Amino acid sequence: MSEKESPVARTVLQQCLRASLMVKPAEEGSEAEYVQIDRGMVIYICFFKGATDEILPKMVSTLLNLRLSESSSGKIVSILDLPGSLLIVPQATLGGKAKGKAMQYHNNINKEDGLRLYEAFVALCEKELEAKENVVIKHGTYGNRQVLKLDTNGPYTHMMEF
Amino acid sequence: MSEKESPVARTVLQQCLRASLMVKPAEEGSEAEYVQIDRGMVIYICFFKGATDEILPKMVSTLLNLRLSESSSGKIVSILDLPGSLLIVPQATLGGKAKGKAMQYHNNINKEDGLRLYEAFVALCEKELEAKENVVIKHGTYGNRQVLKLDTNGPYTHMMEF
Repeated sequence: MSEKESPVARTVLQQCLRASLMVKPAEEGSEAEYVQIDRGMVIYICFFKGATDEILPKMVSTLLNLRLSESSSGKIVSILDLPGSLLIVPQATLGGKAKGKAMQYHNNINKEDGLRLYEAFVALCEKELEAKENVVIKHGTYGNRQVLKLDTNGPYTHMMEF
Repeated sequence: MSEKESPVARTVLQQCLRASLMVKPAEEGSEAEYVQIDRGMVIYICFFKGATDEILPKMVSTLLNLRLSESSSGKIVSILDLPGSLLIVPQATLGGKAKGKAMQYHNNINKEDGLRLYEAFVALCEKELEAKENVVIKHGTYGNRQVLKLDTNGPYTHMMEF
């Protein structure tokens, strides 16, 4: 396989009835803060070395237009058609490769570029969904622990690489 | 890429504090039935065309021995070392490939062989974990909707192909 064919991003997609994610841990004197969506899709995302901004429009267009969700009538539709909300979860572990019993993450992008791409990805999703009513986009804080609760009617887990 | 190098199974792995899965829908006169695990790992699994029983021992050994879970002291350990419970979720959607806006599942194994491999995979996991105390193995019913609830302290989502 030539280097050109290696993916630069991996995503895992799950539809949800409700999902919540901690974005600020509890501290002395303040409770933990959460973001939450109702019906929609959770996007777990990880960028690899070699990823650039160029890939983002294609990624967002693909993920939002692919038929990955079930409507209330049982039809399989895109998140734009549903329409549903998005919870975007940075997930560096997705880039792991097994070496013996350990997971290694050598192919993951560096933290600085990863954060920039992640924020640009979120912003593009927000732009695509801004015209939709009753839909929200929430996301985790890059580099932190992603404390997630998920409630589904069947996650329909998909994996897409770009 | 030669045909030999194509994976025959895809798994997605998430650690959990608690996970529950519906194994029997509600009917008139009876409530839905769920199986549940506490601390442990959810294994979403999909077999592709060409998968045979030969791959199963390696799959189970790898998944149970890989360091994919966080212990209460913050150390990354395997599910055998934790020790933690397993919830195994058949997830045919994991084999999906995008064609235009639709997902296609042409590379998935046929239902009969998939069921046989799935049951053998579950049995092997049960055998590996039977000596562990306070640990359970639960699993979904192949071919049905997998109504899942997940509660995590960070899912640490990994993807492993075999």
